[in-house]
Amino acid sequence: MSNVNVKGKVTLLSAGPGDLDLLTLRASKALAAADILLVDDLANADIVTLAPNARVIRVGKRGGCKSTPQAFIQRLMQRYAKKGLHVVRVKGGDALLFGRAGEEISALREAGISVDIVNGVSSGFAAAAGLGISLTHRDHCQGVTFVTAHMQDHSQPDWAALAATGTTLAIYMGMNRIASLTASLLETLSANTPAAVVQNAGSQQERRLVTTLDRLAQEATEAGLGSPAVILIGGAIGEAVEFAKRVHATEGFAHAA
Amino acid sequence: MSNVNVKGKVTLLSAGPGDLDLLTLRASKALAAADILLVDDLANADIVTLAPNARVIRVGKRGGCKSTPQAFIQRLMQRYAKKGLHVVRVKGGDALLFGRAGEEISALREAGISVDIVNGVSSGFAAAAGLGISLTHRDHCQGVTFVTAHMQDHSQPDWAALAATGTTLAIYMGMNRIASLTASLLETLSANTPAAVVQNAGSQQERRLVTTLDRLAQEATEAGLGSPAVILIGGAIGEAVEFAKRVHATEGFAHAA
Repeated sequence: MSNVNVKGKVTLLSAGPGDLDLLTLRASKALAAADILLVDDLANADIVTLAPNARVIRVGKRGGCKSTPQAFIQRLMQRYAKKGLHVVRVKGGDALLFGRAGEEISALREAGISVDIVNGVSSGFAAAAGLGISLTHRDHCQGVTFVTAHMQDHSQPDWAALAATGTTLAIYMGMNRIASLTASLLETLSANTPAAVVQNAGSQQERRLVTTLDRLAQEATEAGLGSPAVILIGGAIGEAVEFAKRVHATEGFAHAA
Repeated sequence: MSNVNVKGKVTLLSAGPGDLDLLTLRASKALAAADILLVDDLANADIVTLAPNARVIRVGKRGGCKSTPQAFIQRLMQRYAKKGLHVVRVKGGDALLFGRAGEEISALREAGISVDIVNGVSSGFAAAAGLGISLTHRDHCQGVTFVTAHMQDHSQPDWAALAATGTTLAIYMGMNRIASLTASLLETLSANTPAAVVQNAGSQQERRLVTTLDRLAQEATEAGLGSPAVILIGGAIGEAVEFAKRVHATEGFAHAA
């Protein structure tokens, strides 16, 4: 009820996984109308070209690295919105999957500031598109679980419970603990469960690795794959052409040996 | 390896949850270039206006209702692609979440036909935007599970296992069994777990109900909510302003009684 006279507003805008043409038409319009653009470091840096009238402020946070404090980002959004400006807060992927949108929405509401949300494509979907697979091929599973390996209290997710669902697992922010999380999953899932890493999904820099769960951590390390990346695990990943090629290549190698 | 001379192609295109401005820029371009448009009945019917050069063929399938057989859709796509045409197969939400994209991709590959995939916004994300919440508010959960209640063999998902993950549940195609699935979830989750139904999420016809798990089925039925809708369950849903209002309204009512 406070600050009902605030005329500015904040748009939480999903920048999608990377390529600018994966933005929605609605996002493109909001960018064009932005006065202030707060850009996350997981978003494509070229997104500023779509907001020609905006003052651009670079903020961002990436697990373990130096980042702009959340409280400072909150204050910036509120300050400019209270000046009557249209603040567009750009977030990579979809703003409503990880990335602290929940806390930002709460704080803005408490300050009496109107919040719009513009959806987008999360990187797990782009990763599946790169692999040419459905996340939920019905021969394999009944759903997909998006989970962060980077928890607020630095604990681990309950990998056994997640594996027990039988859903495809799409693990975000897991690259710096890929060895431990795959080891945990191997306590429940079989060694030959199809698995993949897609780095920079949905961008020109996309790199993919498709293998089995028991080999995932080692092969990802050997290939030099790192953040930002999505780890995908489950039978549905076995539908990727790259998985079939890998199996054939392995078989050929075995025959030759 | 067969049919390497096929010059046509198929684009599996995600139409998003409803409003046309939730299409991606890439989807918009693909529609403009389409020769043949196969439109799902979960997609916004007005999408044809974005494909002025395409011959439009309406296909679709909705659980329990009459629908175009999958095999016929497959044959249509292959026939037109083999004629050298650009076939755009439109699917509601994101093509890679439910909706049989996996089977369509496999069949097209076997026929030697090139497949492009264009991502989009799935209705679960639009539902969260409508509610003004993050799907994964880190005070409440470490992820979100998208699951279909409509399984290939007509069995039920393992609700206990899904609830045990502690993730937000986004249940698709669950409205015709909302009483039984909420009853199953109540064996694991507490009665006052926040829960919501969002019908026609991300469209002008969006309708929302926010309540607790124990009241969800009855209130959804009383409100006349039906398919297509997303059912959202978990602590993160309690961040919705509508949940707070509901609690206050209930308290007020109790005081007055």
